[in-house]
Amino acid sequence: MVTNHSPKDRTIEVCFSPALIDLFDTTDTIIVVIDVLRATSSICVAFEYGAKCIVPVATTAEALSYRSKGYLVGAERNGEMLEGFDMGNSPFSFMDEKIAGQSIALTTTNGTQAITAAKTRAPQVVIGSFLNLNALCDWLVAQDHNVLCLCSGWKNAFNLEDSLLAGAIVERLISEFSFSSNCDSAMASQHLYNISKKDIFGFLANSSHRKRLERLHIEKDVEYCLTPNQLNIIPVLKGDTLYNMAVLEEAATTK
Amino acid sequence: MVTNHSPKDRTIEVCFSPALIDLFDTTDTIIVVIDVLRATSSICVAFEYGAKCIVPVATTAEALSYRSKGYLVGAERNGEMLEGFDMGNSPFSFMDEKIAGQSIALTTTNGTQAITAAKTRAPQVVIGSFLNLNALCDWLVAQDHNVLCLCSGWKNAFNLEDSLLAGAIVERLISEFSFSSNCDSAMASQHLYNISKKDIFGFLANSSHRKRLERLHIEKDVEYCLTPNQLNIIPVLKGDTLYNMAVLEEAATTK
Repeated sequence: MVTNHSPKDRTIEVCFSPALIDLFDTTDTIIVVIDVLRATSSICVAFEYGAKCIVPVATTAEALSYRSKGYLVGAERNGEMLEGFDMGNSPFSFMDEKIAGQSIALTTTNGTQAITAAKTRAPQVVIGSFLNLNALCDWLVAQDHNVLCLCSGWKNAFNLEDSLLAGAIVERLISEFSFSSNCDSAMASQHLYNISKKDIFGFLANSSHRKRLERLHIEKDVEYCLTPNQLNIIPVLKGDTLYNMAVLEEAATTK
Repeated sequence: MVTNHSPKDRTIEVCFSPALIDLFDTTDTIIVVIDVLRATSSICVAFEYGAKCIVPVATTAEALSYRSKGYLVGAERNGEMLEGFDMGNSPFSFMDEKIAGQSIALTTTNGTQAITAAKTRAPQVVIGSFLNLNALCDWLVAQDHNVLCLCSGWKNAFNLEDSLLAGAIVERLISEFSFSSNCDSAMASQHLYNISKKDIFGFLANSSHRKRLERLHIEKDVEYCLTPNQLNIIPVLKGDTLYNMAVLEEAATTK
């Protein structure tokens, strides 16, 4: 990665769909993967509750294959937890003492696919949610690289909640830290965030995904996932596996 | 096409990039192709000035091959008119008496590619711009079909100006004519249009495409293309060729 940028040299961009990621130059870039409802929110919670690592996998069969290695297994499709798994995609299913010290294999409709799209394309991939918004932005500012927010969307289609979080990151990095942007998706996201930030839950009342989740009676999940700054966790991808960045860094220091 | 919908059964959706069009069900749908700066604006102007027909083609070589058939030929790449062509992509290059009665072959960076993406996917394809906004919406309302706004974007990336026009169409069809939408791109476009509509030119000051066009000194083009309701023209695709819908209908009546 190229280093020694001044803050003003750094750019922030937003990609609305994993299907569009190849339009972006990610050579010198940290990719923030976003799947607000609910994969990247739940991943942050899992590390808050002491998960050792999380392996994002594409298929339910692949997730189940990790059980024999002693992993907990999580799977969600179309919003619902699948039978035979230890957890689904609800952040509350990760708020459990059984998580501490455990390795988890996880597959979800959108989020894990976006992580897969990101991992071969950028030197560093981290996980964003409203829950870790400020912690993540502070860390991004302290790095020396451009930033691309990759919205998971819904089966490659644009969605509102992911673009709102991208907009919150854009707003903070541009307004407070002088990042620049020549990316229309970033500008659109920033505008959408600024008109919604006083009541994101209300703003999303008519969004396709909130309607989709309504039938599942998980309003509590949605409210929690849209609440900024609950956690000081930054999940980071190393190889094919997500770790709690703070734990990784502590291990490196004590070696 | 399925017919006899009540207005409330009809949906409006927005696709932010030709690369995402296959995510949409276009079976019973009119596609509105949008390339505000400047292809679809110029196409509307050409018909206002009496063009007989316009053939959108993919390559400059293909466009030139039409010259021997007596066509005028237009070509733009990266914002600039190419040497050896009769016109580029500026609406003002089509405001000319020489256009009347002529057939035109046209290739542009984004707009003609979006028309090509649309034509095999929907039973009816029409051309949208701010210039023909109200005429187009009135016509869409009088039809019996769903609507998909296809934004040409910039080389498949999201752009602001196309999404603002899409938002203007969504706003009118939903607010005034009870179309419904379960499409987050449509909702985002509608929000962006509503916060920008008092000064679209100013809102786009920092957009990537306005910056791109600045070096070409075509602010006059941009201002004109962002001015709603200058023309009562609806260009419509029949086979591979665009016609002025009013002229087509008149010809059908007088047969």
